This record gives sequence, structure tokens and C-alpha cells, in this order.
Amino acid sequence: MPELSIAQYDLVYNMFSFTFATLLAAFIFFILVRSQLAPQYRTAMIMSALVVAVAGYHYFRILESWSAAFTLQDGVYVASGQPFNDAYRYIDWLLTVPLLVAELIYVINPRNRGRLTFTLATAAALMVILGYPGEIATDMGTRALWGFISTLPFLYLVYVLFTGLGGAMQEQTPQGRILIRNARLLLLATWGFYPIVYLLPIFGVSGSAAIVAVQVGYCIADVAAKAGYGLLIYAIASEKSKAAGWKYEAVTTPVPSPMS
Amino acid sequence: MPELSIAQYDLVYNMFSFTFATLLAAFIFFILVRSQLAPQYRTAMIMSALVVAVAGYHYFRILESWSAAFTLQDGVYVASGQPFNDAYRYIDWLLTVPLLVAELIYVINPRNRGRLTFTLATAAALMVILGYPGEIATDMGTRALWGFISTLPFLYLVYVLFTGLGGAMQEQTPQGRILIRNARLLLLATWGFYPIVYLLPIFGVSGSAAIVAVQVGYCIADVAAKAGYGLLIYAIASEKSKAAGWKYEAVTTPVPSPMS
Repeated sequence: MPELSIAQYDLVYNMFSFTFATLLAAFIFFILVRSQLAPQYRTAMIMSALVVAVAGYHYFRILESWSAAFTLQDGVYVASGQPFNDAYRYIDWLLTVPLLVAELIYVINPRNRGRLTFTLATAAALMVILGYPGEIATDMGTRALWGFISTLPFLYLVYVLFTGLGGAMQEQTPQGRILIRNARLLLLATWGFYPIVYLLPIFGVSGSAAIVAVQVGYCIADVAAKAGYGLLIYAIASEKSKAAGWKYEAVTTPVPSPMS
Repeated sequence: MPELSIAQYDLVYNMFSFTFATLLAAFIFFILVRSQLAPQYRTAMIMSALVVAVAGYHYFRILESWSAAFTLQDGVYVASGQPFNDAYRYIDWLLTVPLLVAELIYVINPRNRGRLTFTLATAAALMVILGYPGEIATDMGTRALWGFISTLPFLYLVYVLFTGLGGAMQEQTPQGRILIRNARLLLLATWGFYPIVYLLPIFGVSGSAAIVAVQVGYCIADVAAKAGYGLLIYAIASEKSKAAGWKYEAVTTPVPSPMS
């Protein structure tokens, strides 16, 4: 690891902590808000909660690993000798990326949601797994090759999400359609950050500024793609619950006891 | 960090621990009491729970950072060399201040609550973000400038909270109006502590007594503005639930089993 100024080290540390706190708040929100939705959309909220729980755990670990990787010496942070464990991110993606895709399918709720979820979650997992040999490769040719291979399941995913849901999209309310479009675009926009980071070593970008930029970028991408995306899934579920006649907030008297 | 007596160090440490315990208790209370309220006021309790959860996490971190920043040497606490991380507070505010405003809007429940929440939460976040460059500035002119700029969204917030809710306030019960007025005053009173701390360096106040006073003051302000304020939101929600015909406590006979 290169030398970091105190401000650089602190910025990354504080962004990790901010991301952890945001994921924690999102987890509590997704758990609690479930009962306010029509039953058919609660599974999507459970999945959203799983995503931010898994990501929160990994951010806690990443923060600890970051602390252990540096020592303050003469006013700058130098490598302590312990490596900064970035593999946490791949483990995180392996679990969360299929779930992010599943969330969207469950809230859209097409007729064949089980099969579609299995196919797309498999594609999402393949995308992560096939990227990893390139991530740990030392030569740039191997990195580029695996990067290319892992792009194929990604393209398949994008193709199905943007064209294969045509029938199910017709069944949404106009407001629901706008929200689903936004969720798909958010997925695409935030996922776009990961290949950029993947390509940096190929373009020879390194040094302290690059490390700081990459870690801060990952934090912003994860907050948007996991907590923010989950909020959009909630908004879709809430809109569709209302459209389905679920009047959670209109109940002003308690449910009478069964025998009264 | 200046030298602290054992009593000074312990006072701050114990106040951090007290604040953490209070926030934890408030979190559990807000979660559990939700189901006793009419459904339309439960979202406000979820937001109250998120606020104290996020603040609790940060107090846990602040307590650890405080411990690490000092070493006991010859009967006094001296700086260990590790910095005391005060950035946790800004990250906390960035997440909690918009939520505190949102809580109040959701419990008042005006017709345009979605749009109003978005506008005021944005103003609250801007207030925190614009204060930060001044907080880390070393010269007092920059500090004063950013302090002034961040006061503008604050004034906008106060203006809307105290005048812009006129219509919605007419729909509250007399008891509800009193409670909402108290919640707004508590917000204003506790938020008043933060600019005072912000201005201390400009007035040249520093040294161990100032550090202790600032940290103890933050604890009191956070307990009042987060746990205490959440309790007021609960009281408003409870009052409004009753007014809406929600008779949670009126069931005096046990619910018979479905098969009896």
C-alpha cells in the first residue's frame, strides 16, 4: 500500500463508517416496513434486508482491515505490513448481486418469477465469479480476458431486465412503471462503476489518490446500489400495494377479536 | 489533545456510555411501541428508531475513539497520538438530521407530506454538509464563512416548520397542537447548542475544560434531540391515534381462542 496523508486515510475510514451506518439504518427500515406492505411484496423487502445486512457485515470487516493495514508514522499513514483485504468485496457481491436482481423480479412479480429469478441470479453469480480470476491476476492480459468473459453474463442480464420483462411491465401502474424504470437505471448506473475500477490497473492508474478514489467510489456505489435501490424497491412495493387495494394507513380501528 | 485529569476523562467517557445506553433503550422502545399506534403514525416511529440506531452506532465509535486517543500516565490522561475522530458526529448528523425533520412531518401528516419531507430533508442535509468545510478549516474566516452559509438552509427549515404547516396544524387536536409546538421548540432549542460549539474556536475557547464541556454538551443535546424528541413524537402519535378512534388499550377482556 502507498503512503497516505492523514486526510486521505481519514476520508476513506469515515466513508466506510458512513456506509456501514447507512446500511444498518436501511436494514432496520426494510425489516420494519415489511408489515406495511401487501403480503405479496414482502419477500422483496426481505431480500432488500438481506442485501444490506450482508453488505453491512462486509463493510464492518473492510473498515477493520483498513485500520489494520496502516500505521500512523511521523504524520503520515504507512503500510503496516498487514494486507488490506479487498476479497471481502467479491464475497459480498457473490451474495448480494443475485439478491439485488431477485428483489427487482419479486417486486415486478411476473408470472414466471421463480424460474426467471433462478436464471438471472445464476447469471449474476457467474458475472462475479468469472471476474475474480482477473482481479487476482498479476498480468494485464489475464485480467482483460476474465473481465471480458464476465461481461457476457452481465450483457445477458441487462438484455433480459430491459427487454424480457415486456409482458409483466404492461401490468404495472403508470407510476409503478416509472419507478421500475428508475430501479433498472440505478442498477445499470451503479454497476457501471465496478468495471471502471476493474480496468484501472490495466490503464496503469495507481498510487494513493487512486486508492482513495476507488474506495470512496465503492462506498458511494454501494450506498446507491444497495440502500438507495432497496428504497426504490420499497417505493415500487408501496405503490403496487395501494394499487392492489391494500389500505394499510386507512385502518383506524383495531381488528376485532375473532369471536366478537 | 490537551492533558485531562482522571475525573475529566472519566466524566466524558461515562457521558458517552450513558448516551449510548439511552439511545439503545430508545431504539427498543420505538420498535416495540409501534404496534400500539394507529397504522398511519407507525412510519414516524420507524424514523425515530432509525435516528437513535444511527446515533447509537456513532456513540459506540466515539467512545472507542475517545479511549484510544488518551493514555493514563502519572495520574493524568495524555494524548496517545491517535486522533480523536470527531467526524463521526458530522456523518451522524448527515443521516439523522433529515430523519428528525421527516419524523415531525410524518406525525403531523400534512396532505403533501412526501414533497414536504423531500424539500426539508434536503435543506437539513445541506445545512450539515455546508458546515463541514468550516469545521475542518484552520483559519477562522473560513470557519465563519461556511458557518454563515450553512445557517441559510437552517433558517429556511425553521421558517417552513413554524409557518408553512399552518393548514395542517388546524387539523390537529388541541392537545396535539401543544405537543407539536413542544417538539418544534425542542428541535430549535437543542439545535441551538451545535452552533455554539461551532463558534467556540472563533472566540478562542480551547483547553481541557472546553473539550470536556463540548463533549458533555453534545451528549445532553443528543439525548434530548434524539431520544427525548422521539418520545415527544410518540406522544403526538399516541394522542392522534386516540383522536382517530384507535382504541388499543380499550380491550379489557382476553381475546378468546378461535376454537372456543
